[in-house]
Amino acid sequence: MNTERSSARALAAIFSGPGLPFRLEEFPIPTPGPGEILVDVSCSTICGSDLHTWHGRRQEPVPCVLGHEIVGRIVSFGRGTARIDLRGEPLAAGDRITWTLAASCGGCFFCRRGLPQKCEHLFKYGHSSIAPGREFSGGFAECCLLTAGTGVVKLPDSLSDALAAPANCAVATVAAAFDLAGAVEGATVAVLGCGVLGLTAAAMARHLGAAEVVACDIDPERSGLASQFGSTAFSHPSSLLEDVRERTLGRGADVTLEFSGSAAAVSGAIAATRTGGVSVIAGTTTPGGKIELDPNDLVRRMLTIRGLHNYRPENLVTAIDFLIEASGTVPFGLLQGDRFELRNIENAFASSSSRSGRRTAVLP
Amino acid sequence: MNTERSSARALAAIFSGPGLPFRLEEFPIPTPGPGEILVDVSCSTICGSDLHTWHGRRQEPVPCVLGHEIVGRIVSFGRGTARIDLRGEPLAAGDRITWTLAASCGGCFFCRRGLPQKCEHLFKYGHSSIAPGREFSGGFAECCLLTAGTGVVKLPDSLSDALAAPANCAVATVAAAFDLAGAVEGATVAVLGCGVLGLTAAAMARHLGAAEVVACDIDPERSGLASQFGSTAFSHPSSLLEDVRERTLGRGADVTLEFSGSAAAVSGAIAATRTGGVSVIAGTTTPGGKIELDPNDLVRRMLTIRGLHNYRPENLVTAIDFLIEASGTVPFGLLQGDRFELRNIENAFASSSSRSGRRTAVLP
Repeated sequence: MNTERSSARALAAIFSGPGLPFRLEEFPIPTPGPGEILVDVSCSTICGSDLHTWHGRRQEPVPCVLGHEIVGRIVSFGRGTARIDLRGEPLAAGDRITWTLAASCGGCFFCRRGLPQKCEHLFKYGHSSIAPGREFSGGFAECCLLTAGTGVVKLPDSLSDALAAPANCAVATVAAAFDLAGAVEGATVAVLGCGVLGLTAAAMARHLGAAEVVACDIDPERSGLASQFGSTAFSHPSSLLEDVRERTLGRGADVTLEFSGSAAAVSGAIAATRTGGVSVIAGTTTPGGKIELDPNDLVRRMLTIRGLHNYRPENLVTAIDFLIEASGTVPFGLLQGDRFELRNIENAFASSSSRSGRRTAVLP
Repeated sequence: MNTERSSARALAAIFSGPGLPFRLEEFPIPTPGPGEILVDVSCSTICGSDLHTWHGRRQEPVPCVLGHEIVGRIVSFGRGTARIDLRGEPLAAGDRITWTLAASCGGCFFCRRGLPQKCEHLFKYGHSSIAPGREFSGGFAECCLLTAGTGVVKLPDSLSDALAAPANCAVATVAAAFDLAGAVEGATVAVLGCGVLGLTAAAMARHLGAAEVVACDIDPERSGLASQFGSTAFSHPSSLLEDVRERTLGRGADVTLEFSGSAAAVSGAIAATRTGGVSVIAGTTTPGGKIELDPNDLVRRMLTIRGLHNYRPENLVTAIDFLIEASGTVPFGLLQGDRFELRNIENAFASSSSRSGRRTAVLP
């Protein structure tokens, strides 16, 4: 982007609704206010939720700039903005960073109860309609204005843009799922859905010491990929319960993690969880089918069922640490899809839509 | 009971199946083996689950001696039995005690994972068929043989038999529910079902510092009793959601506790829980209706739903402590029903069955 003059302008890809083409528009580059940081976007990846919005499976206020999996370099800080990242490390102009997909107020009912992702004044990148002076609120643009309450993490050079961008959504959400599930050392973990989240979860389960990771997907071709991400077995949903029982003396998995978003898989995850186990349901972010739950089974098997949506800032730190520590052994590169320039964003979305399980990158 | 001779015998009320009268039979008083304790039963109360078995709503192996809410005095110890209670206090013959409703092995998969109530070698008082020499396995008898792995708690004189007996089932289960729910200080807690467990839960919620306790029951006449047990509001199930929202700026209860056993109440509990809240389901101990669960609601509201069945030994200690500490302010006596001698056990069950919400006592 062009930052040479105060009247400099930068491009943003405006989304106006499902079925409508993106419009590339230039807007004045904003001056960051108190608590804000202006970032020069290097790379944004297309998340499943961006695709949901693009296809019209979920509604966002329009016109907006989509994209929340973003990596960029700091251009400037607003007055009084804390120049410190979530690890406590100092931040300076030029630093390569990623940041939480949402900004929270820190003081509301939910923030005070450890649920910043449900903040009463939540601002989510890529999810709000643009307004004059507030156009750069998503990833598919040349710059992004970070609002107050955003958690920033400085990135090491060893982590590529395309690998780091999904950390602030997919990988951090997976880290949050393990937070809810509790310790998995020595455990049998079943992961339902072998998209980016599920494969990342398989790898993180092994990284955290899980003894067995049973990956489950409706597509048998995901089996090989799941194995490369550390799963020790692969099941079709129709045989998951049987397969898990076979490996656990009939008990079921200690932890089940549902990322597919299918209602049937939610039932399958709960059924495959052992007595006293935990089932974390994270995939169902759009309205869909209901499931049947047997309260007597819930009680007698002492199940814990936890819904997860987004994550807390510390989960992003865990996610980045995991990518750094595991990138030598886990083939994260296999999750990377094609790269497109911002002006080809229409093709980027079409490509991403046809190749689920990979993160398409958009480079300004 | 008559312990004067080694050939002494004691009475037990034998249950042979739903609709069949209890048979009072004499059996030789057993000599406790290693790890075992022989107890002279002072009082046993009739639990809802005893009534379920008596009515045939659930199946237990017969013939058996029902009853697991028991208070008695130690007669003798088996060789090598640890003479120490769950608090670490010394035990001696003549001590007045109650004990966990089940004995666990301490070494199996579930015991090692903090779920002794799901022990692979679980022995539950009042739930196993009698065998020669093992007749005294329930509360409705003159004596009881405590097996190895039973957690014993010495009772202070200040706690009456009729008050202490239900501690080892109802009150300890309520303590376990708060364990699963997490801290409730300052919280809004909704309690569904105003029987013995629900009323105890209302009182325990206030004891633990809950700011608001909304009690809910289908019977509006429970309202007064609920208020005496500390509830700050009373709702019919049809208005619970609205009432809870009105008191929480529309958010819902931080914690919901379901003790009624009704499937509709399970749905009601989940609906009334706020985003990020916990719903503990403990009432549904018999097979019954399924409920509909919306995975998208579970995910977006980040609900935690936990099934609870029975409790861990430490919950019994908490339960006894609670009864001691709260008996000055909570009218626990209102939960006590009539008293019957062992030879009138038929009338005791008939009376208990017709007066739900109170604990009928059987005194040998």
